[in-house]
Amino acid sequence: MIKPRTLPGFMELLPNEQILFNKMKETIKNSYEKYGFLPLNTPIIESAEILLAKAGGETEKQIYKFKKGENDLALRFDLTVPLAKYVTQYYDKLSFPFRRYQIGKVFRGEKPQKGRYRELYQCDIDIIGDGKLSIINDAEMPAVIYNTFKELGFDDFQICINNRKILNGFFASLELKEKAPDILRIIDKIEKIGSGRVYAELSEFVEKEKVEKIMDFITIEGTNEEKLQALENLKIENEIFELGLSELKQVVKFIRIFGVPNENIKVDLTIARGLDYYTGTVYETFLNEYKNLGSVCSGGRYDNLATYYTNRTMPGVGISIGLTRLFYLLTANEIVTAKEEAISDVLVISMTEDYDVCAKIVTAFRENGVKAGFNIEEQKLGKKFKYADKLNVKYVAIIGEDEVKNNLVTLKNMVTGNQQTMKLEEAIEEVKNNRN
Amino acid sequence: MIKPRTLPGFMELLPNEQILFNKMKETIKNSYEKYGFLPLNTPIIESAEILLAKAGGETEKQIYKFKKGENDLALRFDLTVPLAKYVTQYYDKLSFPFRRYQIGKVFRGEKPQKGRYRELYQCDIDIIGDGKLSIINDAEMPAVIYNTFKELGFDDFQICINNRKILNGFFASLELKEKAPDILRIIDKIEKIGSGRVYAELSEFVEKEKVEKIMDFITIEGTNEEKLQALENLKIENEIFELGLSELKQVVKFIRIFGVPNENIKVDLTIARGLDYYTGTVYETFLNEYKNLGSVCSGGRYDNLATYYTNRTMPGVGISIGLTRLFYLLTANEIVTAKEEAISDVLVISMTEDYDVCAKIVTAFRENGVKAGFNIEEQKLGKKFKYADKLNVKYVAIIGEDEVKNNLVTLKNMVTGNQQTMKLEEAIEEVKNNRN
Repeated sequence: MIKPRTLPGFMELLPNEQILFNKMKETIKNSYEKYGFLPLNTPIIESAEILLAKAGGETEKQIYKFKKGENDLALRFDLTVPLAKYVTQYYDKLSFPFRRYQIGKVFRGEKPQKGRYRELYQCDIDIIGDGKLSIINDAEMPAVIYNTFKELGFDDFQICINNRKILNGFFASLELKEKAPDILRIIDKIEKIGSGRVYAELSEFVEKEKVEKIMDFITIEGTNEEKLQALENLKIENEIFELGLSELKQVVKFIRIFGVPNENIKVDLTIARGLDYYTGTVYETFLNEYKNLGSVCSGGRYDNLATYYTNRTMPGVGISIGLTRLFYLLTANEIVTAKEEAISDVLVISMTEDYDVCAKIVTAFRENGVKAGFNIEEQKLGKKFKYADKLNVKYVAIIGEDEVKNNLVTLKNMVTGNQQTMKLEEAIEEVKNNRN
Repeated sequence: MIKPRTLPGFMELLPNEQILFNKMKETIKNSYEKYGFLPLNTPIIESAEILLAKAGGETEKQIYKFKKGENDLALRFDLTVPLAKYVTQYYDKLSFPFRRYQIGKVFRGEKPQKGRYRELYQCDIDIIGDGKLSIINDAEMPAVIYNTFKELGFDDFQICINNRKILNGFFASLELKEKAPDILRIIDKIEKIGSGRVYAELSEFVEKEKVEKIMDFITIEGTNEEKLQALENLKIENEIFELGLSELKQVVKFIRIFGVPNENIKVDLTIARGLDYYTGTVYETFLNEYKNLGSVCSGGRYDNLATYYTNRTMPGVGISIGLTRLFYLLTANEIVTAKEEAISDVLVISMTEDYDVCAKIVTAFRENGVKAGFNIEEQKLGKKFKYADKLNVKYVAIIGEDEVKNNLVTLKNMVTGNQQTMKLEEAIEEVKNNRN
């Protein structure tokens, strides 16, 4: 006998939790489709050579790699590399800008710890251009994400945006270009470690006056307009900086036209995103009351998606929700609960052995679009009610001898406890009109 | 530079095909939920020891197995073993009969050939009892499958059912018990190889008079009622046979009560299902006009799901749609086509550089529940229309200088070619009322 178990770092949910998870996944999908993104579903297994074309470091260590026969295979560790493969492989059959979403599992052999999973859902959207891509697409990302989080039931969240060119140009103007990656890495941690630590860490390898300029820069305060104005006022003469600032202004303007309220958007000059491939706009998203949870949705603009597979220049912009981690955070912190989640609207239970009538009634519910299960086992009534309880069904239809004889149904509302005997058609109507 | 490619045996679809695939997957999911099945989503990676607990032979050869650090891991090759693990692992938290569906990818390192995939979707439903499980559940499976195929758009299909006990009892009465597995394997092929070949193959190891009895038995003709009556008339005195016949009668009766028309159900005594673990009712499903495609949905009853993980007796009944293979068969044989599939209801395209107005209009569509994309790139109008064509959108909203000046939208129906300039609200209404 083998003890049944699930590997550490792999999320496996109870049915009510799974119902909630699926609802969230469905909401994200519907939101992405409302914005005209096309679905993709690339394989989980790819040739290791394809997936590792540009990888290195952490990715190389974390990836699940194995041989089958003569073939070196690997499990995808993100949805971006498969996208790069896809747009180059099917280039002739696609039209650009290519807008796609993909919601699927990716695999990372990380050390498992709270909220870190080895098998996790990512929900990605990207827009890929052929040669060039209008900056307006950079405003589309926060628009979709705003809509998505609203439809997930959140109000109090902020999508923070910045532009890497502003940072890069700023550092170039201070002649800190080579140190920029290290500086960015430290700035990126300001939410976690505070500005004092950032100051200290920067001082270890940057001259004091420059550290102060950096601190002044990243702590610019005010409304989004005031911040943009403050950046203008710095009068930094650097082409990259100027381009970045003009892009950021455009993005902020179009985000508003796309209907995102001011309070859900924040220009945040501290956001750099660690990843090397972001070259322009960058995004992070925070739930205001739970900032300590970190960003729940991040992304940015990249100059070139697929250098490893093609000579074509394919700029893109994308953003991703890490759904597995988000679900963990939301449930572990009791921001959402799966306690009441149910699939069936009604459960039909028999108190007689005339199962025909039960089967007819459950069929009638279903034929009227009501989700219905049944319990026609040889079990005591108490056990059947416990069964209904565990399923969280709102209604139970009880079929006893009297009901069979008189062609009626006793419908019990499990929330209010109200119970009434009625005609089948009435029971169907009541459930239809009052289900969750 | 690495040539982008997808491994052989892995399905990867173009966006319009993916839209159709997703619609089918969604239809199956909704049908399963209508019948009160709870969703599960178990990990793709499990401990090799868990997945291989009862495996052997083909499974052992086909499974993707690998090491990560010290751990022997494997990719699930079906959804039944994970279910067995799940119901024993979470036994205390579940209520029985436990009804679950799972729709997900499984992995089999088979030789890739037409319609055979290494990564494939299975769409499973099972009902698991604790100790016992009413035979009525065996009638529920064809009921769900009937509803599912109807909602997938099929009318002309047959769910064929049989009962292994009838076969086993029959063979026992002929004192062919030991040869039964070999006989069943041959009978199972009758649709493919014809009754002549079956007769010949059986004759190789069974006495002639018994072969004739077998042939008489498996070629019993008539309506379902006539077949059940003919089985009765055989007067085979064998307990297993009698139990099987009584079960089959019950199942046929309840399938009808569950609303499945007679023409979609067929008692078929040749169906045995190769798999060893089926012990009672067995199912196969055929599209009548495409019988050569083989069964598109199969399953059956098993006495004990999880003997490798628990001492508890857990009988179950289940059925599975192999969606990847089904999709391949339907599209390759042009039974369905993805040619017209689209996500967006409308595409907004700009003929001016006043992108603000375009952005406002696309936002207005979305806020009114219309799925909308845009093309605000610097592209010629012809290229933008080609873009709209490739997306299969039914409507294009054209925003030129006149439209901007007069606060209007030119809406083109891409199917009829009709084009009209109107107010935005009118355009939204037209798209809402006429989208696909």
